Amino acid sequence: MITALTRNETWSLLTLVIACFSVLANTFQGDGEPLIASLALSGIAFAATFSLIRWLGGVFMRAGLKGKDMAKLRRPELPETMGAVCAIVYILLIIVFIPFPFYKDIVAATSGGGNRDVVLPVEHVETGRFLHRFPHSKLASYLSGILSLQSIIILGIGDDLLDIRWRHKVFIPAFSAIPMLIVYFVDFGVTQVVVPAPLQRFLGPTVDLGWLYYVYMAAFAIFCPNSINMLAGINGVEVSQSLVIAVLLLINDSLYLAPFTPYPHPAMDSHLFSIYLLLPFIGVSLALWWHNWYPAKVFVGDTYCYFAGMVFAVVGILGHFSKTLLLLFIPQIFNFVYSTPQLFHLIPCPRHRLPHFNVRSGLLEPSVAEWSRPPSKLVALALEILHQLRLVRVWKNEEGDITESTNLTLLNLWLLWFGPMREDKLATHIVVLQLFCGAIGLLVRHKLALWVFKVDNRAFG
Amino acid sequence: MITALTRNETWSLLTLVIACFSVLANTFQGDGEPLIASLALSGIAFAATFSLIRWLGGVFMRAGLKGKDMAKLRRPELPETMGAVCAIVYILLIIVFIPFPFYKDIVAATSGGGNRDVVLPVEHVETGRFLHRFPHSKLASYLSGILSLQSIIILGIGDDLLDIRWRHKVFIPAFSAIPMLIVYFVDFGVTQVVVPAPLQRFLGPTVDLGWLYYVYMAAFAIFCPNSINMLAGINGVEVSQSLVIAVLLLINDSLYLAPFTPYPHPAMDSHLFSIYLLLPFIGVSLALWWHNWYPAKVFVGDTYCYFAGMVFAVVGILGHFSKTLLLLFIPQIFNFVYSTPQLFHLIPCPRHRLPHFNVRSGLLEPSVAEWSRPPSKLVALALEILHQLRLVRVWKNEEGDITESTNLTLLNLWLLWFGPMREDKLATHIVVLQLFCGAIGLLVRHKLALWVFKVDNRAFG
Repeated sequence: MITALTRNETWSLLTLVIACFSVLANTFQGDGEPLIASLALSGIAFAATFSLIRWLGGVFMRAGLKGKDMAKLRRPELPETMGAVCAIVYILLIIVFIPFPFYKDIVAATSGGGNRDVVLPVEHVETGRFLHRFPHSKLASYLSGILSLQSIIILGIGDDLLDIRWRHKVFIPAFSAIPMLIVYFVDFGVTQVVVPAPLQRFLGPTVDLGWLYYVYMAAFAIFCPNSINMLAGINGVEVSQSLVIAVLLLINDSLYLAPFTPYPHPAMDSHLFSIYLLLPFIGVSLALWWHNWYPAKVFVGDTYCYFAGMVFAVVGILGHFSKTLLLLFIPQIFNFVYSTPQLFHLIPCPRHRLPHFNVRSGLLEPSVAEWSRPPSKLVALALEILHQLRLVRVWKNEEGDITESTNLTLLNLWLLWFGPMREDKLATHIVVLQLFCGAIGLLVRHKLALWVFKVDNRAFG
Repeated sequence: MITALTRNETWSLLTLVIACFSVLANTFQGDGEPLIASLALSGIAFAATFSLIRWLGGVFMRAGLKGKDMAKLRRPELPETMGAVCAIVYILLIIVFIPFPFYKDIVAATSGGGNRDVVLPVEHVETGRFLHRFPHSKLASYLSGILSLQSIIILGIGDDLLDIRWRHKVFIPAFSAIPMLIVYFVDFGVTQVVVPAPLQRFLGPTVDLGWLYYVYMAAFAIFCPNSINMLAGINGVEVSQSLVIAVLLLINDSLYLAPFTPYPHPAMDSHLFSIYLLLPFIGVSLALWWHNWYPAKVFVGDTYCYFAGMVFAVVGILGHFSKTLLLLFIPQIFNFVYSTPQLFHLIPCPRHRLPHFNVRSGLLEPSVAEWSRPPSKLVALALEILHQLRLVRVWKNEEGDITESTNLTLLNLWLLWFGPMREDKLATHIVVLQLFCGAIGLLVRHKLALWVFKVDNRAFG
């Protein structure tokens, strides 16, 4: 494990940081251009994360934050929980970013004791299309998003340290979503949703879901982090899928800012909000990806998966496009649904379900769950059907009883379909799958949604 | 180490929790009474922290979060970093508390896409003296305070885990203060301070400190957590001093709400803000104190000291009474100033400066720093003078060169003055000292400040 930057890396990162700082300094000359500042800060985030991952590798190992890479011949020990470094750099950067999009809309003089008895409104300067600033009232939303992200980092680190049980872990994101939901409640409180056109005759144009909307948001916030944490276990796959989702979201966001979109678009603020949160996320994730792609030098830890999922949940909920977001989670949704028989223990669920590393061939193969006693007739029948559909593979003993069946994860299924392959090839396949499904999803969102809703909200106004 | 609650404790805590929940449920019937809700939530915070400390003791030990109690005969191993449990319960509770003081001052309907095109102002209902609610605009301040607290928890846990160097540690609170200072900048931005009466002829009634005010706030936020972390090392002393400061602050706050104070008082909001943050802090700290007082069952970790100090820094800065707060930190300020010769390495500074445990007597004695080579003439003279003033004790060899001198901490000085004593007696003395100095401080603040300022702001209006 190299714990220092090479001379080449040092100079490249230094150049990047200097360039970013110059861009940042330039944004101060006008009224501040949040989008450009966000880009520059993301460059700094990349450089900082890259360097810190290198420098802290040894420190983490000494502190016992380490794990064995089981899918390698020598099973090297690597630093764990490096996602925490990512996440902390990210949080710091999006906090430092606050003054760029939020101008002061009140300037107050005080007569002491914390009261604001002299309030002077200052005129709001609109500085152009891409240089848009947020109204001050969005600050609370932004802060609540950061609070939720910080909460999941604290709980994620706790999980990585204390090895919390699966059935408790699932609710970590629920706890972390509380700040966001509570601020949503006191600050915004919109629980109406637009009704699809065919149903508007019965329900009217919008329907108020009330507290059900909060249940939906909580479920969404539980799903995103956990689903990323489930599609995990081989080098680079956690970071790659997060990067693909982030980039697709960014493309979707830019549709609302692009020159061909009518201006000012009512959803523009929400999508700027999303961009401001995603750009530095891509910055820190790229730095982690560099070290985590095959052959991995560091592990990301549950912390990263939770953190990445929560970034998406925050963006989706506070940006009001959670349904669109789910279209980018198709592989994760499939993986979750496909896993349920094991999660609910209809099929035995071993502690780890990652693909099996074949020491002789150096390739990954589907891993299996062993049946200590044969399944009930119903389960056996279902497994047989799935086996015929090539959705699972079962092995039987001479009596015809099922003794082993493949673990129900997307990674194992992929190996079942396309045969054993090397770890990086499998990860690449999954990344391409994610990209393909996501692109289709966005196409459906913007082209086909018109069949169900009257307008694509991108063309609103 | 007992890791379960006794039957007696279970029932007591359960009764407390049920009582608190009933009180909480009652506050929903009217318009919500934030102060009563805060009290009830603090009771729940106590019960939750108490139980979690018990239940997690073993888990922390297994995860390697443990340390030896050096001031005991058998040097038992105890769980470390239990302050993190406190802090996480605290954060969760003050987030859940948000809806109580912050009413919705806007209700918005939406046309989709996150825009608020229909804004309906709702009349503001004032529900009486103690049931006061915050204006919505204070939400960002409150959230930024929570962000700073979460940041220091993350960094504190990092410190406890990774054993960061002293010269890096000092700046942990500075990083954590960033969210609060940035939101202060975009949201409030008041940097004027009231000028003492004798100077008003020259400077006018207030003076704008500008960016210097931010430097002051950052310095304040660095000082509070580090100064508590420095007055540490014997069972119970960290939590006790924090509890004394919190209770004195609470007394000071209630002066602004008391029936004899003119109503509505302009500083009332700031002091309510302070009460809302302090009540649950007292709740979680009492639960920790129970387990950390002599003979300790758990250690609090740097996390607790940082967290406690940051609670005070947040309260002082966002409540605008940082000068008053410093009057309650007199023992900490003395301890810091007294330590500087060792911190700046004018006098050798061993890794740990806690009092020495005499195995034979079972009492604590002042610990010493060894001089591997004799001090320079100037330092020797200074030490000699301090020795004569009984502020330090030095030992010399036959040549008259200084070979050892007591470590410069308040705890060692106290043992030097009052002789060796048992750990709990020393802790009790320090608590009484803290209480005494703080009470004097508050008296000075409210009685003698009139000599310097025209009015005591409590009687404002």
